[in-house]
Amino acid sequence: MALDPVLATIDRDLDQSIERLFALLRIPSISTDPAYRGECRKAADWLAHELAALGFNADVRATKGHPMVVAHGGPKDRGPHVLFYGHYDVQPPDPLELWETPPFEPRLVGSNGNRRIVARGVADDKGQLMTFVEACRAFIAAEGKLPLRVTILLEGEEETGSPSLPPFLDAHKEELAADVALVCDTDMWDANTPAVTTMLRGLVLEEVIVEGADRDLHSGLFGGAAINPIRVLARILAGIHDENGRIAIPGFYDGAGELDPEIRAQWRALDFNESRFLGDLGLKVPAGEAGRSVLEQIWARPTCDANGIIGGYTGAGSKTVIPARASAKLSFRLVGQQDPMAVREGFRAFVRARLPADCKAEFLSHGASPALQLPLSSPYLAKTRKALEAEWERAPVLKGSGGSIPIVGSFKRDLGMDSLLVGFGVDDDRIHSPNEKYDLASFHKGARSWARILAALAGRN
Amino acid sequence: MALDPVLATIDRDLDQSIERLFALLRIPSISTDPAYRGECRKAADWLAHELAALGFNADVRATKGHPMVVAHGGPKDRGPHVLFYGHYDVQPPDPLELWETPPFEPRLVGSNGNRRIVARGVADDKGQLMTFVEACRAFIAAEGKLPLRVTILLEGEEETGSPSLPPFLDAHKEELAADVALVCDTDMWDANTPAVTTMLRGLVLEEVIVEGADRDLHSGLFGGAAINPIRVLARILAGIHDENGRIAIPGFYDGAGELDPEIRAQWRALDFNESRFLGDLGLKVPAGEAGRSVLEQIWARPTCDANGIIGGYTGAGSKTVIPARASAKLSFRLVGQQDPMAVREGFRAFVRARLPADCKAEFLSHGASPALQLPLSSPYLAKTRKALEAEWERAPVLKGSGGSIPIVGSFKRDLGMDSLLVGFGVDDDRIHSPNEKYDLASFHKGARSWARILAALAGRN
Repeated sequence: MALDPVLATIDRDLDQSIERLFALLRIPSISTDPAYRGECRKAADWLAHELAALGFNADVRATKGHPMVVAHGGPKDRGPHVLFYGHYDVQPPDPLELWETPPFEPRLVGSNGNRRIVARGVADDKGQLMTFVEACRAFIAAEGKLPLRVTILLEGEEETGSPSLPPFLDAHKEELAADVALVCDTDMWDANTPAVTTMLRGLVLEEVIVEGADRDLHSGLFGGAAINPIRVLARILAGIHDENGRIAIPGFYDGAGELDPEIRAQWRALDFNESRFLGDLGLKVPAGEAGRSVLEQIWARPTCDANGIIGGYTGAGSKTVIPARASAKLSFRLVGQQDPMAVREGFRAFVRARLPADCKAEFLSHGASPALQLPLSSPYLAKTRKALEAEWERAPVLKGSGGSIPIVGSFKRDLGMDSLLVGFGVDDDRIHSPNEKYDLASFHKGARSWARILAALAGRN
Repeated sequence: MALDPVLATIDRDLDQSIERLFALLRIPSISTDPAYRGECRKAADWLAHELAALGFNADVRATKGHPMVVAHGGPKDRGPHVLFYGHYDVQPPDPLELWETPPFEPRLVGSNGNRRIVARGVADDKGQLMTFVEACRAFIAAEGKLPLRVTILLEGEEETGSPSLPPFLDAHKEELAADVALVCDTDMWDANTPAVTTMLRGLVLEEVIVEGADRDLHSGLFGGAAINPIRVLARILAGIHDENGRIAIPGFYDGAGELDPEIRAQWRALDFNESRFLGDLGLKVPAGEAGRSVLEQIWARPTCDANGIIGGYTGAGSKTVIPARASAKLSFRLVGQQDPMAVREGFRAFVRARLPADCKAEFLSHGASPALQLPLSSPYLAKTRKALEAEWERAPVLKGSGGSIPIVGSFKRDLGMDSLLVGFGVDDDRIHSPNEKYDLASFHKGARSWARILAALAGRN
């Protein structure tokens, strides 16, 4: 069966597709902030309602955190059975004052080939997941049904380390196990070149709280005698990296390994402009491990970054205080076979070894997941590459991603499934930053790409 | 003339004195926060009204910041002319959740010899300044007039480095220049032993903002390549102190000098319990320069403390961000002849020398003042020591203070006056901390002490 009517439906329906996406973007589903719990529920309800309207057997399932949306559709006897995964939660929009327009009032801006949608969560991940929903809609409109069996799983805790996902997968193994997972939370190589992401860094999220005196002290009356937790915390953080940008925590690199020589050669052949990549951020010099390319630094090397720090008086003016505590939030990115639990324990031991007399440290874990690699021999990968090449008229790049998608690890570990990571974001989407955007071309051709991939996986063409 | 009727008036009037102090404590005159500007004005108005009711020629004078209260009283032909200085502004009360009762709802708690008043600002400095006002009130009630010429100057910017004071003193030199200044913002040696403070540390307040990329970045997509300002700031702060607790900023100790051997001997003879001093804070080990006593560390050695630090995401949960900026507020305590401007420039140069490629630093100054020392030969000091001994039945200790009182420097530099630093606070008053208190004995015997000092300075007894 020719795919043209399906693709034509996507083209014709584009304006309404955008309106539907806008409706989802208007819901501030910020998962990390308890104040937005109701909005997360609202986003889940909206999605379940949309999918049910397309004929999916769709519902919203409660968890200890934010709910899951699960939807089943397509002919049960037509394989392979695919499990599509996306997330409806978004990052907090702060700092709010840097947004040119309100983050939850989506707009279509620009003209001609440079049209884009601006809103928090449009690239990460609402716009991306809607490309798949719109592809399904087009099949149903043009052919009356999906070309193969499709299960859709949408979560609301991706930005907070997905705490409810592992128990949910464990409790619904039979329902959710499919032949292959389709995951949309990734980027293209550039605005004209699609990509399949085959390497994902892992993630360990730690918070450390250093405590000194039992209360805040006057820095004049006690300064010189009383330990200052900010000074202690600064010294600990300053010791994490050595002069060459390597992480000095003992055992940290265990299992990190080195890049496959074939992949290294492929990446070297890519037209990657380090100066432009950094220049787009207002930077000039790569800040990571000395002697590594930028692509290696962000895709294939482990890191540690402080994501936040706070202690003492931070309001206007000054306050001459020695605070009782100071804290920092850190994220470690992992590669290869690095063990998240070993990294966490290594960090905690590193901190404890550097605590002076009279200081205590408390730790909070905000999540941990290993790095992942898709086997290049996967039969689904070959079909996906062909489908993407047909849409974009360029062979897709097989790339890495510095970001972490813990679900891919759970799919592999708990459900025995590989994941095809295909997304249509681009480098300058400003995800997690003010003025996040998603190109209209990403949204439109993304939906067309999924239509082609679903057809290809179903054995058509 | 016998002083007994004046002292008896103070004793009899104590309950009303407490009520008057409570009225002042209920005004949240937080000078560092622009939101409390009106409350600072209210505190100034309240004080001017009280002093006018006592017969002072009192008024509120506008400045670019918070207003001054200036009041003149007593016989113009009876010397010496004394200038009493205090401040009506207070520190912010945060962290609010650690207060057992609301900071601006004063309470009298405890029983017998352990009664105390709890409220923000009660020890620093509202309770202290009211001891002097109550002593004046008692003279007027018992004798119909003050025993000597008194000028009172109360400011509202002491907690923010007194930016308006130097121009105000400069503009009112003739009106304010007296024979000696009386400054009440200091402590006793202990709850039973009075003290005159003869050494004050100076203060330099600096804020540094380190900036990296031109926006917040996703720590997965950019971590490893993009510089992290928290890491840079931590490294700078960690480098300020060496392994022995000495400050590593080049030239920092220029002019700091060493303690006078006589003073050192006097301090050694004091019954100072280092373990108890630290134990009261929940600490065990002095954190300052190795090889110095705690008294020397807090009274006679310079320090650097971070008073606050902030950067990146500091809300609930986690956010995988590399922030665009991180900042810290620092205070330097100075001794001897250290030059505040040189310390400031030394710090800024130290920071700039440690900035990696792609990072910028901005600096904000929140004030600067040198250290001060009262000549031990002052004739007013001898009379004051005698008066204090009469009230407390113990000879006062001549001590240092780690805190800074910039006004004392201005009095010396601009008006050619020495200052007698006499206050009735004690170590555990928790100034600048939650649950600040002032002993009822400090308040009551403090007022009696000022009555005795005023009489002694006037040549009575």
